[in-house]
Order: sequence, then structure tokens, then C-alpha cells
Amino acid sequence: MRTQVCIIGGGPSGLLLGQLLHRQGIATVILERKTRDYVLGRIRAGILETGTADLLRQAGAGDRMDRESFAHEGTVIAYGDTQFGVNFHAHTGRDVIVYGQTELTRDLYDAREAAGAPTLFNVDHVTIHDAKSDAPHVTYHVAGTEHRIDCDFIAGCDGFHGVSRQTIPLSVRREYEKIYPFGWLGILSETPPVHDELIYSGSERGFALCSMRSATLSRYYIQCALSDSPEDWSDANFWEELKRRIPEDAADRLITGPSIEKSIAPLRSFVCEPMQWGRLFLCGDAAHIVPPTGAKGLNTAASDVHYLYTGLRQHYLDGDSDGIERYSERALARVWKAERFSWSTTNLLHRYPHQSEFDIKMQQAEVAFLRDNAAAQKVFAQNYVGLPY
Amino acid sequence: MRTQVCIIGGGPSGLLLGQLLHRQGIATVILERKTRDYVLGRIRAGILETGTADLLRQAGAGDRMDRESFAHEGTVIAYGDTQFGVNFHAHTGRDVIVYGQTELTRDLYDAREAAGAPTLFNVDHVTIHDAKSDAPHVTYHVAGTEHRIDCDFIAGCDGFHGVSRQTIPLSVRREYEKIYPFGWLGILSETPPVHDELIYSGSERGFALCSMRSATLSRYYIQCALSDSPEDWSDANFWEELKRRIPEDAADRLITGPSIEKSIAPLRSFVCEPMQWGRLFLCGDAAHIVPPTGAKGLNTAASDVHYLYTGLRQHYLDGDSDGIERYSERALARVWKAERFSWSTTNLLHRYPHQSEFDIKMQQAEVAFLRDNAAAQKVFAQNYVGLPY
Repeated sequence: MRTQVCIIGGGPSGLLLGQLLHRQGIATVILERKTRDYVLGRIRAGILETGTADLLRQAGAGDRMDRESFAHEGTVIAYGDTQFGVNFHAHTGRDVIVYGQTELTRDLYDAREAAGAPTLFNVDHVTIHDAKSDAPHVTYHVAGTEHRIDCDFIAGCDGFHGVSRQTIPLSVRREYEKIYPFGWLGILSETPPVHDELIYSGSERGFALCSMRSATLSRYYIQCALSDSPEDWSDANFWEELKRRIPEDAADRLITGPSIEKSIAPLRSFVCEPMQWGRLFLCGDAAHIVPPTGAKGLNTAASDVHYLYTGLRQHYLDGDSDGIERYSERALARVWKAERFSWSTTNLLHRYPHQSEFDIKMQQAEVAFLRDNAAAQKVFAQNYVGLPY
Repeated sequence: MRTQVCIIGGGPSGLLLGQLLHRQGIATVILERKTRDYVLGRIRAGILETGTADLLRQAGAGDRMDRESFAHEGTVIAYGDTQFGVNFHAHTGRDVIVYGQTELTRDLYDAREAAGAPTLFNVDHVTIHDAKSDAPHVTYHVAGTEHRIDCDFIAGCDGFHGVSRQTIPLSVRREYEKIYPFGWLGILSETPPVHDELIYSGSERGFALCSMRSATLSRYYIQCALSDSPEDWSDANFWEELKRRIPEDAADRLITGPSIEKSIAPLRSFVCEPMQWGRLFLCGDAAHIVPPTGAKGLNTAASDVHYLYTGLRQHYLDGDSDGIERYSERALARVWKAERFSWSTTNLLHRYPHQSEFDIKMQQAEVAFLRDNAAAQKVFAQNYVGLPY
């Protein structure tokens, strides 16, 4: 088989890139290790930057989002007895869009199927060959039989554990990592959200986040020990602990119910440099991970897709290779800004094992400064709605 | 002897408070453990917030400052290959004033002497009595003989090692502290400053600061190990190391010369809560210490003096005790903001012993964000010129 861009990984990054390229007449094949249903079963982020939403529209997959999503003009930040709003719209003229990653992924699959663009599922033993040459190819197995795709470029959208990043030799690859000493225990419940905006809450018992997917589907998180497992937490215990960590007025009006999903995610900051090697380009989790505080994971993947799509379009349509040659540099500049915001927002609101009393006072002072200072709120708002590409 | 306000400590805080009160007709006595020459021999900060300069003018001691000081509209921040200015004036409409603490202290002594207000030097065994009663008094020794001052209020302006803070019982006193794992080696030299603004420079070899007292007197600092002593550093070694840590263009035009002072200061963040106990009020270093990055030490002492002076004036002139009752609360609110800024600016630009590669990337990302983002520069500028009282 031959295509122009072979995309490894059928999650949101690969699908978004595929649709954007398809609409420019650039041929793609997507290789996905799992099934479509498996991919759609992963419960992930739900806050889109306007730039991410715009890319989805450009990909021709934004109609349902525009009908069913809702906009958040701001967010609530709480810490101890303090509670205040940061109004994104007032500071930046922009909102964020609440629309689950699962929904966005479904829309992209539907668009890809409607377009008749090929996606191969249940593919394993994916191997990237000759990425440094002008004629790379990818081999893979389906049901035990090896196949080969020849292509111009390879997009590595196969996540943190994927093969793409590992293909870049260690002699040129540099990885930066921070493992946080806690996780997030999250539940999904068919209850109305406690508030019409997100509540990010620091407390002496640790962090909590009140989030939602829709008017009837809530997503709540609490900081937990890395040694905890979801089975350690009954629904009743989860709700009790959540109430202790959020402002009293929110705790009083919280409607609880049975969890329909419960899981623990570790928190990690990770960046791989460079994000390209010859004709292989990494996108999203394949190259970088952020802790979920501030909702930058999916959005930073979308930002990579923006730079790679722009570069490939210039290459194929304008004969200009500048965009693909500078992909890594441009993508990383924005990645590090998102890493910075996610790291600092995590530091702002979580409890750490060896935090001194002075450290906690500094957290409180940071929160108080954000509460009282318009320029600091503007900085937060600009980061939250997404820095310019 | 009897006075209205007994001020312990004849450094800038005590002197500034004394002059402000004197001009309102409120009687003060200052007790100083050392001599005037000793106090004036201490080489300290040189950057005044406009609020600090205004207080000096209100104290009737601002004439020479207004003639001889100069204003800085901004500062330079450097980190590795990056170098940029933050323009305070553009972001806040205000400048900072370059005027040495030694000069300011001299002006305050001259003003106090001209006013005939009493300052007792070489005083030891200072003891505060009955601070929780309506009739406190202070005892002290001069040349081995005990004396007593009865007063309405006691201002503890006697620095970190003074008796005033220690007078507050441990049962009500809470102290927050961070000791940084490095010091600043500073030299004073009779050379023209390398730049007409300060240069705060982070580098892979550690922090450096290019500062000045006047057009012919420069003050330079480099981050050093806590185990270093000034004798370990020849002038030649100091200049060589400084040049390696500042931008190349600055290193190329740096004019070096013999040091006329060389010393190492450890870096500490420290806050005592509360800042008052009965009729005893703590001001400046007696209650809090900041690392020198960002020049908040003297300015935060002046902010305490503002709140205490305002409270005492209200008490004596208007019969309103609200200002003295809420002194600690009001002073601390601003103290913690200055602590936050000093701590975060120190973190931004210094090397730490156990910093990971990721941590260093976060420093670089913070600096890059400050370079590129106007709202972040505004936040920095507002803090640097001084938050409102």
C-alpha cells in the first residue's frame, strides 16, 4: 500500500490530523492498535481551547460540537476560605468549550468514515523504517500477517507508550520528566454539575476539581495517594472527601449519585525533544504529557496537529518545506508554555508530602495574589483559553 | 524618662517611623545598640519603591534623595541566551528610585538631629516590660547603668536578631522560614555601572546581579555556595565569574576595578505572625526577611512603618484605635505579597543543588513567558515598583 502521510494512532490527534489533511486532498492511512470502540471507551479531558474547537471545525467535524457543547466564560478557584472567579472572557475575549474528548473522537471517526479515508484497526507490531530517508515505510501486522505502507511522511500520534517516540534513537532524543507524588481519583456520575463552571479547589486535605461533561453528567476528581486504588474508595467515601475539599456552599448543594466510572490517573510532566526525526513527526502524548490541572493535554496535542498540518499543507500545496523543517521548534515552543502552566497550576493547588509551613504560606499568597490582581488573572486566563499558535 | 512611642532600633525603619511621628507632634525615643557610624557602615539595599520615597519625603528627609538619586524606568532580565527589558513605567506609570540605604539612613539621622529628637546609642540589655498592659515600659543599660523609659507604645525595629520579636511569647508567635541553599557574594567597586538599569541574570553557573549606587559606584553580586567565604574570592576571580554569568554584550563592556567591600549574605525567607502583641509592634527585619532578589527588604520595612505610623497618628490625632488594632493584619497582608515575589523571583533565576533537567526547563519556560507576555510583565512590574499600601 502507498499513501502520502501514514498516521500511527487513531486517537484524537491522529484523527484530527487525518481529517485536516484529507480536506486538502492529502492522502492518509491511520493505523490503530485497538478497536474504535476501545478508543471511544477512554474517558478523558473535556475542555477545549477555542483554537482546538476551530481545528475541529476546519476538519469538518465541528457541527455536533457547535450544537451540543457549551461555553465557559470563566472558572472558579478556591483555596481554604477563599473563593473567586477568573473571567476568561473579560480578560481575553474568549471562552473555553466544554465537550468531552470521547464525543470529539466519535465525531472525527464519523467524519473519517463518511470521507472514506482508511483506518486500520487491531494493528500490531508497527515498525517505522527509514524515517531519515526520503522514502520511509511502515510495517505492521494484522491477524499475524505482515503488511507494508510506503509513504512520504509518518505522523506519530500513538501516545506515551507508542512506538513512534521510541523510534528516535536515544543519541538524538532527550526526555524531560517530573513524576508528581500523587494521583487523581476521578468519578463520572449521572448527576447535575454542582456549579455551571469548573471549581478548582485547593484545601488542606488536598486538591479537588468539580467538572462536567453536560448538564446531567458530572466529573469530579480528588487528589489521592499513588498507592490508592479505585477499589479503596467507595462512592460514599469519595463524595464525603470531595465535600471536605470544596467550598462549603458548593458542598451544601452538591448532588451525589452512583459513579458510572471510577479511576485513578497518575500525574506526570514529560517532554521529548526533538519532536521530529527525519520524516517522522511526533504529535500529542507521543511527545509530551502534562498533569491534567488546567486541561492542556488534548489542547496541546491539537496545537501540534496545527503545526504539522500547516507544514504538510505548505509542503504539498505550496512546495514550501519551511513548516515541516521547523515543526519541532515551533511545536515545542508552545508545548513548553503549556507544560509551564500545567506544572504551576498543579503546584498552586495540590498538597505535597514534604511541603513546609512556609511553602503552604507561599501557595496561599499565590492564590491571594491571583484573587486580587487583574494582570495575574489575565495571565491565567490567557493560558487557560490557550496561547496563540 | 517618659515618651509616647519608644522605638527600639536606630536603623532605617526606626528612624523613618520616628521622623514621621515627630512631624505629627508625637514624641519618640530611639534606642540603638550600636553607634551611628556603625549603622551607617552597613552596606545594604539601594532600590526604593515610590511609596518608600514618598514616606521619606513625608518624614522631611527626602531633599537629598530628590537631588541625588536617579530613577529607573525598568530592569533587564537575562537567562542563558535570552535578554529583555521589563519597563516598569510603561506597565505601571511608576519608576523605582536608586538611592543607597546608607544614604537614606544618613538623611534620616540628620533630620532627627536637626529636629532635636532623642536617639540613645550604645544601649544594651534592652528589655520590654508589660507590653500587654496599658502602661508598658522599656529598661536598658548604658555603660552598665540601668535606665527606664515609660511609654504608650513600643515599636520593635531592631532587626532579625533583636529582642522585640523574642518578647512575644512562643505560645502566640508563629514563625515561617525557608533557608536557601546558597548565598550572594557581593562587591562594591568604584567603577561605572555596566548598564544604566539593573541586570538580573540567571545562568547555568548560577545567578548574578549587576546593580549600582551611583554613576561611579557599582554593586555586583553572584550566587555562591554557603560554605564560601569572601576570602575565597579574589577580585579577579569574582570578575571572571561574573562575566561568565551575564549576557555577553554586558561582559564585554564591564569595567572592573578593586573591590572596596566584599561580603557574603545568606538568603532567607522569614515571617513572624502576628506582628503585634499588646502595645508592642514589630517593623521590618524584626518580623520578616526576604531574599534580596527583587529588592523588597527595605521597602517592606517601609510598608510596615506606613501602617504603624498611620495607626499611631489616627490614635493620637483622631482618637481612633482601628489602625493600631489592625496593624498586624494589614502589615502582614502586604508582607506576604512581598515574600511571594521575592521567593518566586529567587526561584526563577537561581540554580539549586537538586534541580532536575525538567526543573531547569521550567525556569527557562517561566523566563520565556515573562519575555513574551505583556500581562506577565505587568505583574512583575507592579510587584517591583511596589504593590499599593
